[in-house]
Amino acid sequence: MQKLTIEETARFFLARDGFLILTHRRPDGDTAGCAAALCRGLRSLGKEAYILRNPQLTARYQPYHRGLTVAAPPEDSVIVSVDVASPGMLCPGAEKLPVELLLDHHGSNLGFAYRGIVDSGAAACGEIVLRVLLAMGVRLDKAMAEALYVALSTDTGCFRYANTTARTLRAAAACLEAGANAYAINRALFETVRPARMRLNAYLSQHMELLRNGKVALCLIPLLAEREAGVTEDDMEDISNFPRNLEGVELAVTFRTTENGDTKLSIRATPAYDAAAIALALGGGGHRGAAGATLSCDQAQARKMVLAVLEKQGIL
Amino acid sequence: MQKLTIEETARFFLARDGFLILTHRRPDGDTAGCAAALCRGLRSLGKEAYILRNPQLTARYQPYHRGLTVAAPPEDSVIVSVDVASPGMLCPGAEKLPVELLLDHHGSNLGFAYRGIVDSGAAACGEIVLRVLLAMGVRLDKAMAEALYVALSTDTGCFRYANTTARTLRAAAACLEAGANAYAINRALFETVRPARMRLNAYLSQHMELLRNGKVALCLIPLLAEREAGVTEDDMEDISNFPRNLEGVELAVTFRTTENGDTKLSIRATPAYDAAAIALALGGGGHRGAAGATLSCDQAQARKMVLAVLEKQGIL
Repeated sequence: MQKLTIEETARFFLARDGFLILTHRRPDGDTAGCAAALCRGLRSLGKEAYILRNPQLTARYQPYHRGLTVAAPPEDSVIVSVDVASPGMLCPGAEKLPVELLLDHHGSNLGFAYRGIVDSGAAACGEIVLRVLLAMGVRLDKAMAEALYVALSTDTGCFRYANTTARTLRAAAACLEAGANAYAINRALFETVRPARMRLNAYLSQHMELLRNGKVALCLIPLLAEREAGVTEDDMEDISNFPRNLEGVELAVTFRTTENGDTKLSIRATPAYDAAAIALALGGGGHRGAAGATLSCDQAQARKMVLAVLEKQGIL
Repeated sequence: MQKLTIEETARFFLARDGFLILTHRRPDGDTAGCAAALCRGLRSLGKEAYILRNPQLTARYQPYHRGLTVAAPPEDSVIVSVDVASPGMLCPGAEKLPVELLLDHHGSNLGFAYRGIVDSGAAACGEIVLRVLLAMGVRLDKAMAEALYVALSTDTGCFRYANTTARTLRAAAACLEAGANAYAINRALFETVRPARMRLNAYLSQHMELLRNGKVALCLIPLLAEREAGVTEDDMEDISNFPRNLEGVELAVTFRTTENGDTKLSIRATPAYDAAAIALALGGGGHRGAAGATLSCDQAQARKMVLAVLEKQGIL
């Protein structure tokens, strides 16, 4: 792949017309926000631009794509992907489209397009898109700024995660200056707890099992508890952070029952422990800080297997 | 009070030596962080500077004041207050000290010092202190940057609240550039839940009273529930956000019992309601979004009084 600078990327866009923007599978705020901002930015320069409709886009992000999508690739479009780490991650319907330019921040991106930018120092792809838009001379409007703010804030846990840099915060500052109602976005994305999730949190607080002086937390979530609380999959999105955020916890294992009765484990670890090693011993995999495994048994049996591995690895 | 610009304030500091910095009662991250950063900044210029020890400083912020405090005012100190809205808010032991200069961001500050800055456009007093330090030619080091980051992030709920501006985010960016480990601070201040607070959250989830189809939340916190959960004042810092963050809640009233048996109300409202009007009707005051009042009765009686006001104002 030909590596481009921000300025070269801007010139690429300025020299062409008729763009189709691709997002990734299971779209998050970064890919959704980048696509919306880029599409609007290109249109503001008088160019034709669409986002390929991503059937997996959730209700939360749909408003940002309203009026910008197309159901099938228009002919002779210049195809651009945003925040897509590999061809396999292209959204349904886009798997075989030839990507002419990609903008991404995943270090693992091998460069599946003809040209593009992979900047793993960017906390969100939104940082890259903002810089490209400004280099094109786009005047950020409220809608672009809000889409970019969604991109920046979702990939950084609203600027809390370790990936947040001075550049991320300055990019967010530019969005606020361009009129983004950051408060409303923060409320909707980060501060609002649904009643069902609050009920489940209360259950988990009272049933979490703490071992090794509170350093290790086992959090079994029976299907019955999920049903009684009334949670949806949206509510469960960050459930593995629940035990991890308890003070003193350095290793947290969350247990959920899948549709077919298996037990799905999410393992989260501070640098003191290796989540991947534990997952590996249970037939799963992942990173040092976050890993997972699925066991063909119920939660009680899975708990015993986890305890056995923790003991064998000298953790308990 | 003589109103100073940032530059005039910098010149005031540069022309003098021997400073005593005052924080406010029930100190939060803004006053604590401002005092630490200002003290270190003045010392970095070779000046003598101390923070008057605030006996109410909680464990969370004590590390930031280590090595900077003095138990009693040194003679002939130039007395400076940071983030103190009124003389009555000066920390214990400082009530009668003549404040020569104040730096504050509370719009209600009537200017109780000889000179100073009251910039209500600043989300945190930390924004003002940062600008003064830079105007003095202070080179931000890691300790100053982290103290300022604490100031900026605590007063904005880690950049989530409506008071956050582009300037706040740029100030935070400057802190990161100067070496602040924002991630560690964010983990400690915003992501870590102490076990006692988790127990109290579970209690509140199960006892919160929802009215008007869940738009109004009353959250009574009996002393017994606080004691059984084992919470400290640190744990209770943002308790009024707990009912407010429940999806659908637009008006939240939190009830706590004070040392002498009174009931302290914290009222939080979305723009649909006026927290200040409710507080006013109960003998208190505040802003449209956040207000409070103290009632000389127990929580059950206070609840009745609140319900009466809500009915009278057509809210229930």
